[in-house]
Amino acid sequence: MQSVTSATPSQALIDLAERVADAARAVTLRYFRSDLAVDTKTDLSPVTLADRNAEAAMRDLLAQEVPEHGIVGEEHGTEGRDREYVWILDPIDGTKSFITGNPLFGTLVALAHKGRPVLGVIDFPALGERWIGAGGRGTLHRDARGQEREIRVRACISLEDAVLRCTSPSMFTSEQDVAAFGRVARSSRLTIYGGDCFCYAQLASGWADVVVEGDLQPYDFMALLPVVEGAGGCASDWRGQPLSLDSDGSVVFASNQKLRDEVLQKLLRD
Amino acid sequence: MQSVTSATPSQALIDLAERVADAARAVTLRYFRSDLAVDTKTDLSPVTLADRNAEAAMRDLLAQEVPEHGIVGEEHGTEGRDREYVWILDPIDGTKSFITGNPLFGTLVALAHKGRPVLGVIDFPALGERWIGAGGRGTLHRDARGQEREIRVRACISLEDAVLRCTSPSMFTSEQDVAAFGRVARSSRLTIYGGDCFCYAQLASGWADVVVEGDLQPYDFMALLPVVEGAGGCASDWRGQPLSLDSDGSVVFASNQKLRDEVLQKLLRD
Repeated sequence: MQSVTSATPSQALIDLAERVADAARAVTLRYFRSDLAVDTKTDLSPVTLADRNAEAAMRDLLAQEVPEHGIVGEEHGTEGRDREYVWILDPIDGTKSFITGNPLFGTLVALAHKGRPVLGVIDFPALGERWIGAGGRGTLHRDARGQEREIRVRACISLEDAVLRCTSPSMFTSEQDVAAFGRVARSSRLTIYGGDCFCYAQLASGWADVVVEGDLQPYDFMALLPVVEGAGGCASDWRGQPLSLDSDGSVVFASNQKLRDEVLQKLLRD
Repeated sequence: MQSVTSATPSQALIDLAERVADAARAVTLRYFRSDLAVDTKTDLSPVTLADRNAEAAMRDLLAQEVPEHGIVGEEHGTEGRDREYVWILDPIDGTKSFITGNPLFGTLVALAHKGRPVLGVIDFPALGERWIGAGGRGTLHRDARGQEREIRVRACISLEDAVLRCTSPSMFTSEQDVAAFGRVARSSRLTIYGGDCFCYAQLASGWADVVVEGDLQPYDFMALLPVVEGAGGCASDWRGQPLSLDSDGSVVFASNQKLRDEVLQKLLRD
């Protein structure tokens, strides 16, 4: 079970994480809603120029500031995965939003210390909003006007009162997973699709109660952990195991452990 | 079949439609992300104070400026539905987004002349963006920095190349409709969920190619018609009939008629 992140990153590292997100933002906004953004040659989840160039900008900054740290990135691979500090980068989470002019795409920056995420930034370049989670202090939300406040998950006792978030039902591919997610959705008050990393920002801010997703990569969820845990929430994979670089890609994030346990039960059986 | 809207509203009516959207925006932004926004007592699609007060503000302005016109509103009912000019209002389209802090909710303002929509505004208060369609001229998109430009749907020859948008698979309730939508989704290049009226703004801007939805009310789709048609797109119900105040709530919007006809065929059979 994932306990609340305890290691506290220095303010210098928190500032660096924000600068890394700033570097990506400058690139993604140059391409967003431009004709150049879309390169659909390779697969259905298009790799864009923005993706590649944004991650390059993030890596350049890290190479300059903390060359001793490792990096795991969506676009440009892994380097020094076993080092004490490892950055996990997703320049554009929500590529489908990005290529369709939808401002809900985000940039994810995580820092893991000895394999454990201690710092996470969820940045929304086109919204001008950012969520910042760091072990040992409360998660901050900075809105488009630059106003910053500490946020907190909301109280939600049971799944029947919960707002469930999930990017798309098509992220569950096996018949078993489709059925398991269906049991959770039918037990929730409301299921809302779409959003990628915005779902987790909603959970941290107390605007939603549970996120259940599948088929994620570590760069999709590592930054989310400090943000949600720093706001009082919790997370695991579908079997209740802590999330790590080696997880299977199934995730349950919830505003409290009782709710998460109820979801885990539903995922197992009705 | 719905032809391109031909009647041209006066600039004074276009300005009035924008002022009606402004009036709603002032109210919705006061409630958005506030603790007061949610009133879930009545049903699963919560009626919020914002909804009711925003529509009241819109109606007040219309009663003052054009008391001879009729009004159809989501919250406060119908008045003078058979008059020459009728306004169709949806203060908050995407209530589920609104109550979960998601800025993709919109305000819809339509003006029908003799039953035919000739003017439509899709406004996104929290994004600061607006799409304005008026018969006889090209649709305009005004972005958050106030920059305005005429927009156009993109060329898309066939469904296998198309980005399909739909708010949620759960808007199709009968087994038949679920199967019909499934045939369209499987034939598309990419299906993306979430978004409500933002889907149609994407279509008009050339960021998506098809929207297929069901279970809509006239106040959900009347404002969308002039926006999409003024950008070169087309629309009908699932049987190919023009959309009107008496439609059954099924809609297909597409960037061109060939694509729409391909979708209509898929909705009928494989």
